[in-house]
Amino acid sequence: MLDWDHIFATRASRMRASEIRELLKLLDRPDIISFAGGIPDPELFPDVEFKDAYAEIFSGPAVSAALQYSVSEGYKPLREWLAKQMEKIGIPAGVDNIFITSGSQQGLDYIGKLFLSPNDTALVTWPTYLGALQAFNAYEPHYDQLNPGGNRTPAAYAEAAKAAGGRVKFAYLSADFSNPTGETVDRAGRERVLDLAEELDIAVIEDAAYQSLRYDGEAIPPILALEIARKGDINHTRTVYCGSFSKTLAPGLRVGWVCASETVIRKLVLLKQAADLHSSTINQMAICTVAERGFDAQVAKIHRVYKHRRSAMLAALEKYMPDGVTWTKPEGGMFVWVTLPKGMDGTALLAKSLETAKVAFVPGRAFFADGSGENTLRVSFSCANDKMIEEGIRRLSDLVRGEAAALAA
Amino acid sequence: MLDWDHIFATRASRMRASEIRELLKLLDRPDIISFAGGIPDPELFPDVEFKDAYAEIFSGPAVSAALQYSVSEGYKPLREWLAKQMEKIGIPAGVDNIFITSGSQQGLDYIGKLFLSPNDTALVTWPTYLGALQAFNAYEPHYDQLNPGGNRTPAAYAEAAKAAGGRVKFAYLSADFSNPTGETVDRAGRERVLDLAEELDIAVIEDAAYQSLRYDGEAIPPILALEIARKGDINHTRTVYCGSFSKTLAPGLRVGWVCASETVIRKLVLLKQAADLHSSTINQMAICTVAERGFDAQVAKIHRVYKHRRSAMLAALEKYMPDGVTWTKPEGGMFVWVTLPKGMDGTALLAKSLETAKVAFVPGRAFFADGSGENTLRVSFSCANDKMIEEGIRRLSDLVRGEAAALAA
Repeated sequence: MLDWDHIFATRASRMRASEIRELLKLLDRPDIISFAGGIPDPELFPDVEFKDAYAEIFSGPAVSAALQYSVSEGYKPLREWLAKQMEKIGIPAGVDNIFITSGSQQGLDYIGKLFLSPNDTALVTWPTYLGALQAFNAYEPHYDQLNPGGNRTPAAYAEAAKAAGGRVKFAYLSADFSNPTGETVDRAGRERVLDLAEELDIAVIEDAAYQSLRYDGEAIPPILALEIARKGDINHTRTVYCGSFSKTLAPGLRVGWVCASETVIRKLVLLKQAADLHSSTINQMAICTVAERGFDAQVAKIHRVYKHRRSAMLAALEKYMPDGVTWTKPEGGMFVWVTLPKGMDGTALLAKSLETAKVAFVPGRAFFADGSGENTLRVSFSCANDKMIEEGIRRLSDLVRGEAAALAA
Repeated sequence: MLDWDHIFATRASRMRASEIRELLKLLDRPDIISFAGGIPDPELFPDVEFKDAYAEIFSGPAVSAALQYSVSEGYKPLREWLAKQMEKIGIPAGVDNIFITSGSQQGLDYIGKLFLSPNDTALVTWPTYLGALQAFNAYEPHYDQLNPGGNRTPAAYAEAAKAAGGRVKFAYLSADFSNPTGETVDRAGRERVLDLAEELDIAVIEDAAYQSLRYDGEAIPPILALEIARKGDINHTRTVYCGSFSKTLAPGLRVGWVCASETVIRKLVLLKQAADLHSSTINQMAICTVAERGFDAQVAKIHRVYKHRRSAMLAALEKYMPDGVTWTKPEGGMFVWVTLPKGMDGTALLAKSLETAKVAFVPGRAFFADGSGENTLRVSFSCANDKMIEEGIRRLSDLVRGEAAALAA
């Protein structure tokens, strides 16, 4: 066999298999109750609406365009719909502030590519979305801890980045019902992130993948909306907003978007042109049709189901988990984040759980850029029914109780 | 406005607008005869077959899977079909040697990402596919000239790359009916590229986007097939083959593939997982259905039409072009490459042509990594009917004759 390592780029050494992806394979084992995925419930997909949308494309005058090459910035009617949608959440944006990506994961990859030179620093929360770390890793950055509630000085960040051989380029965060914690950054925290970004002269990357999945509580304006309120115009902002249809309509079409100042959008368009020309034309058209006809109704349908599951999971945790275990109380999204007693290890617990309790979850360590978070884990309620939640959390709690007792002994 | 330049990565300075893309805008002007694009004729899309394929997905048990997240390596039945297809062209490959990309452009981007660290060297032909240069540019390489007919020593390449601050990582070429020249590398040339790659210990990137568009002449084995003949097993080869459905079925679905040793495929899968998770599930299913049912018939249909257009364009060039102008005689593909008398400039000619002759083409310089090739241009016949070809080449030839005379005066 060829020795490829010296032919590969240095970044290839940071490309490692994802714990989450490996775990997804377990979803097919019928004896396992899985809270490991973070995928939408396929029962909720608007499949009839999509069926009609594709059928109409093939019956109408747009069929040639649907199958042909198209422009890198994306399908204009979809960008127009999105511009109106952004306005509804407090972000006045024009069509030239909207760029279509192949899912918001691609938005994160392109943002890494646009901003990060090797040894630059990205600020991320501890924990953060694992997929963001994977996307950014390809550009060989360092990570430093973003803490929206903390008070580390801008100078301290700048100095650490300089010592690491580069410059801080952006602060990345998911402010609403984040993956993995389900938590939301409050308005004051968002303003502090903007203050920090101003002082450091960096971008803010707002990952809004779960933003429209709020089940209760008051909506907090997106970071981009707060910055527009400061600056008066989206084209003067430094916040790059990444949206996704994967949690609301369907992930299999791979359609997401970025909303930002035109300067950033223009660069992203050039970058996409060089990277994959454009996202699937036909899928952008189908998403546009389904969104125009019933986005709000679809979101309302999802809310009803996921809200119930979220509440069932919180109730089961409350009912079964032993003392010393804590968890977040998300107002939306798909995840609850569980903190085990100190000294327990989520990865070891998973191995045992798959053997004995037959419950799957994601050990929390994967979400920490510094490899900490041993005693944490992520459970998802998006695909779990009442029985699975009750039974799965009961079994997991029994396992945790036993392990905690053994640890204390 | 914010000054973004110091927030962007260094690579952002190499992201520039594409001449071809800007020119595509001209396709809509009805007074212009355009040979500028390089896109398939939408009249030839198998739209009825695609209509049926999507309708069947929505009527069958696969609808949830079609709309859901899927694996990064791609839809298995499509990978199986491709493995059989590769075998038909002399490349015995297993399903684990096949990786689905969002068009072959994404394959090129991922290959740049996998192999190129800043200041590494990529060997490319002079001229080469502009989209490959754009894809690779993001990874900040140097370029050196690959000449399959030449005799520059491996040591000379290695020394030049070292002087440039890195190492030669791969030789990239389109061996069949390349974009932009339409020319084919003969078997001896392919073997020499393999020899060079062996000596330099680098990868060979075989861009096979046009490989199935041969209209006459004898097929030459793909470079990957020749290397398997040497090594006995695809998993011992260094050639990475990039295929596309964009020229045969339809580009708007964004489905292509890479065929290579499992070591390379595994890395590409990890890279894709981090970059966009996977290509559109539903589109991979639709492509698979259409390919399984009638790939060969579709290719035969395209051959008939494009072969006629190719021949009409060569005849028109022969009939109208003045002495001192030469052009390639492609046995397939979509392009003819025209060399003007020395001293003429393709870009200046285009500006004049759009005003007076009303004919569009692509100036050749964009395809040269070193910015040479002033007196060359690319004309595409894929979307031109007899009348457009006759009239367009006549007008272009008249313009060239006048310019050449003015230059000689």
